[in-house]
Amino acid sequence: MTRSLLYEGKAKKVYQTDQSNELILSYKNDATAFNGKKKEVFDGKGRFNNLISSHVFHYLAEHDIPSHFIKKLNDTEQLVKKTTIIPLEVVVRNRATGSIVKRLGFEENRPFHPPLIEFFYKEDALDDPIINDQHALLLTDATDKELEQIKAYALRVNDVLMNLFDSIGVTLVDFKLEFGRDLLGQIVLADEISPDTCRLWDKETDAKLDKDVFRQGTGDLLTVYDTILKRLEAIK
Amino acid sequence: MTRSLLYEGKAKKVYQTDQSNELILSYKNDATAFNGKKKEVFDGKGRFNNLISSHVFHYLAEHDIPSHFIKKLNDTEQLVKKTTIIPLEVVVRNRATGSIVKRLGFEENRPFHPPLIEFFYKEDALDDPIINDQHALLLTDATDKELEQIKAYALRVNDVLMNLFDSIGVTLVDFKLEFGRDLLGQIVLADEISPDTCRLWDKETDAKLDKDVFRQGTGDLLTVYDTILKRLEAIK
Repeated sequence: MTRSLLYEGKAKKVYQTDQSNELILSYKNDATAFNGKKKEVFDGKGRFNNLISSHVFHYLAEHDIPSHFIKKLNDTEQLVKKTTIIPLEVVVRNRATGSIVKRLGFEENRPFHPPLIEFFYKEDALDDPIINDQHALLLTDATDKELEQIKAYALRVNDVLMNLFDSIGVTLVDFKLEFGRDLLGQIVLADEISPDTCRLWDKETDAKLDKDVFRQGTGDLLTVYDTILKRLEAIK
Repeated sequence: MTRSLLYEGKAKKVYQTDQSNELILSYKNDATAFNGKKKEVFDGKGRFNNLISSHVFHYLAEHDIPSHFIKKLNDTEQLVKKTTIIPLEVVVRNRATGSIVKRLGFEENRPFHPPLIEFFYKEDALDDPIINDQHALLLTDATDKELEQIKAYALRVNDVLMNLFDSIGVTLVDFKLEFGRDLLGQIVLADEISPDTCRLWDKETDAKLDKDVFRQGTGDLLTVYDTILKRLEAIK
């Protein structure tokens, strides 16, 4: 398969394949936090992100959630459908932690029923600011109906993944999704779902099994990512 | 009329009268900006704010917008219905200027059709953060229906005031509203509407006739507030 680099992001490279509607996502070993201000390379991180995200997207497909995911190619790469990314970070929160506690004064660990959905405008130069629905209509080409569809998908993804992670002894605290439009113009889930993009807490101990151990310097990233992968692979 | 101080804010004092459902708003001469970080006293400012806000609320009442306003008492005071304030700053924008240009990268002076509505959580300790509708439901006791009512009122106020200011040669660029619940539980417009809470630009020259001259140190606050008051009073 020939390939040409389309785009290099903080955590992934994206290649065009010789099929016009298929891309390769190649996961890098770079960990970044605070909009790239903290940065470190972890040999093996790309493999964990690719294998975990492949597992999660495969599971979502089994639960009828349309996404860009086609298949895992190898340890660090996956084949995906080409999409036009909508520049929104869609955050779903089941409990208050991290930025929302500082920003809005919610008590740490406060549950959200229904889950809280937030849109952030994906624009590094502006530090990914939080926006409301009307801003999203102005700043992206998404329609009102598409924003409602994105929110509905986000809640379905949350339901499905709460079950998946619960079955491996993990609480899904919050996570970030991105959506794109496929070549038919349909909204599909895109990007990755991994400990880089989710807060995952051990159900027994509340230990953090996600990128917060790197952000906060409180643990070894590779060890906790390995824990998530091993538990997912152990599911019968 | 006997009175007792209920609350002192940055720009007003609020007194309980001997009528349980009536309060006095007493406008102070203090100008503040940047959440109180910049501060100055302007003799006569309280009179301008009271007279301009009384004029505007009287005009809104004539256009069937329910508010807390009862009547002007004297140069610096007005009588209002007692309300429970909903801790939201409701911002309506007809053009992009100020914080939204920095925050979201909109081009200065870009028009918004329909007008853009933003909610900020009124909480000094958090620097009045911007929020979405779901946050507003969590952070205040407003219901879904009440938030929709608040947005509808905000757009009606905008329509009515665009006409009023247009008739005195002024562009209503953006403004901030607050709402409360009266003793019957109805949502009514509250607080003040003045050059402290609106961006008002001269239609001919684009000169700023509002608190931005103080925020930015580009003009004399009392002169521009006097211009707005005189033009309003000259309406036949």
